[in-house]
Amino acid sequence: MKIGIYGYGNLGRGVEDSVKRNADMELAAVFTRRDPASLEIATENVPVVHTDDIDEWTDKIDVMIICGGSATDLPEMTPALSEKFNVVDSYDNHSQISVHYKNVNDKAEKSGKVALISCGWDPGMFSLNRLYASAILPDGNDYTFWGKGVSQGHSDAIRRIDGVIDARQYTVPVEDAMNRVRSGEAPELTARDKHKRECFVVAEEGADLERIRKEIVTMPAYFEPYDTTVTFITMEEMKRDHSELPHGGSVIRTGVTGKDDCNKQVIEYSLKLDSNPEFTGSVLTCYARAVYRMAQRGEKGCKTVFDVAPADIIAVSKEELLAHML
Amino acid sequence: MKIGIYGYGNLGRGVEDSVKRNADMELAAVFTRRDPASLEIATENVPVVHTDDIDEWTDKIDVMIICGGSATDLPEMTPALSEKFNVVDSYDNHSQISVHYKNVNDKAEKSGKVALISCGWDPGMFSLNRLYASAILPDGNDYTFWGKGVSQGHSDAIRRIDGVIDARQYTVPVEDAMNRVRSGEAPELTARDKHKRECFVVAEEGADLERIRKEIVTMPAYFEPYDTTVTFITMEEMKRDHSELPHGGSVIRTGVTGKDDCNKQVIEYSLKLDSNPEFTGSVLTCYARAVYRMAQRGEKGCKTVFDVAPADIIAVSKEELLAHML
Repeated sequence: MKIGIYGYGNLGRGVEDSVKRNADMELAAVFTRRDPASLEIATENVPVVHTDDIDEWTDKIDVMIICGGSATDLPEMTPALSEKFNVVDSYDNHSQISVHYKNVNDKAEKSGKVALISCGWDPGMFSLNRLYASAILPDGNDYTFWGKGVSQGHSDAIRRIDGVIDARQYTVPVEDAMNRVRSGEAPELTARDKHKRECFVVAEEGADLERIRKEIVTMPAYFEPYDTTVTFITMEEMKRDHSELPHGGSVIRTGVTGKDDCNKQVIEYSLKLDSNPEFTGSVLTCYARAVYRMAQRGEKGCKTVFDVAPADIIAVSKEELLAHML
Repeated sequence: MKIGIYGYGNLGRGVEDSVKRNADMELAAVFTRRDPASLEIATENVPVVHTDDIDEWTDKIDVMIICGGSATDLPEMTPALSEKFNVVDSYDNHSQISVHYKNVNDKAEKSGKVALISCGWDPGMFSLNRLYASAILPDGNDYTFWGKGVSQGHSDAIRRIDGVIDARQYTVPVEDAMNRVRSGEAPELTARDKHKRECFVVAEEGADLERIRKEIVTMPAYFEPYDTTVTFITMEEMKRDHSELPHGGSVIRTGVTGKDDCNKQVIEYSLKLDSNPEFTGSVLTCYARAVYRMAQRGEKGCKTVFDVAPADIIAVSKEELLAHML
């Protein structure tokens, strides 16, 4: 199947790497809003096309994987591209997913295309695990811990502070809270109980470091509800020690079964990722396979990971799955 | 939806407990090969029916959950019951699943019923996690660890030894091997590297304990390939310390992404279960919901967890799923 990548940042490069690892797929083209000549991609002999010329590609792409940001790109891009292509996106603004769903579904129902939204690991694999665990243990509690990993949104928030040149923020789960959850204790946990925030900041020469620190730790929603540490470093240290994008986390559900709720049952799904964008890209790629198959069967409209039968995401025959994976 | 339970051992009782916890289900009847008058079930005002009278129930049961053993019961029961009912079973003889699938599918295709086989946690949730992780990380390695938990098959094997009155065998994963896997090292591991076997045995008075120990630790396939410890205890100790059926385990996949495979990605799914039969029963129950919905939509034939869209197993509306679980 022929894959298009729409947008070539960290996520787009992650998808490109993943497509190479899946023998039943080929990368047909990369689409960019920048000057195509300015872009060097990692795959040989694949065209880089300006988004203005996308209409020439409607018959040459089976699934378009949209690698834009959730804040402003995807709310526009995904509905628009659903008019012409089967698509997958990683829209991750949890509170607005229902709105995004409706906008995309309206377009995809009309065009007869399949559009799968909010794919990746959260939303995505973490959502799936919340669903499976909640269905199995209706009497229970869900916990999601993130990290240790880089939060781009929190890093950006620090960069907007006056006197800051660069910043990297790590979300760190509180190990003690995770262990209380795993024990089946079902604790009530505040934001502060669950996560710490560690910030590494490069400041302008002569900047008032104490003022910057205070602006960070008191920032509402982003940092105020958490225990936050701020460490000032040099640009050399930033480049040397903080250039990677690791992430991960755990979804834990604890529930009870049996007479008088006597038995505790604990389900945990966890990820430890050296590269967040490459892992997210890998999830998008295998769901592109499912989108292709659903489209082949004549399905249409907006879908999520909840709607996809697991067998549809893997390039293994039904017979092989029964014999070796079940 | 109206649920029938076919067979009332540990698993049947686990399903019964789970049905009570799901408001959209009711237990219609329990079917037994024993004298129904001899059976006291945990739910009030639900009939216990002899399996000879099952034909009177074909219109009164939406999904029959078959709680028989995989060695001899399910290969007969599931195809036979698929002629008359939508069914779910927990057939767990991994090497024979393809044969069981064909036998059940032939009957269910003809009768127009939906039959979901090999549900539970392994096969079942562990299989799903092997599939999801393999699809996401095609360049990687899978590891399944079981325990700590009671293996009924291994306990039974010890009980068949001359001079043994009772036995309980715990499968114990080797922590060091799990940690090597989690590190992304991708080690080659033998059976002995991955699991230990701990046996607690009640022997007849005057029995030759050293002979019994040797017969256990040298038993081919069951114990010979593992480091096995044997501890002789009294019947009182057996009842006091080993009456529960805990289990659990982990499915771990480690894979690589990025230029020159530079990034390690680790996915782990783990279960810690106070009661294996109650957890397995809980999985069967929510897949009974999916079977009901698939049958309502006119689907038929044999299915596995790989064929079921996650949204079908949970009693939550699509709108709620989008707003709160994705």
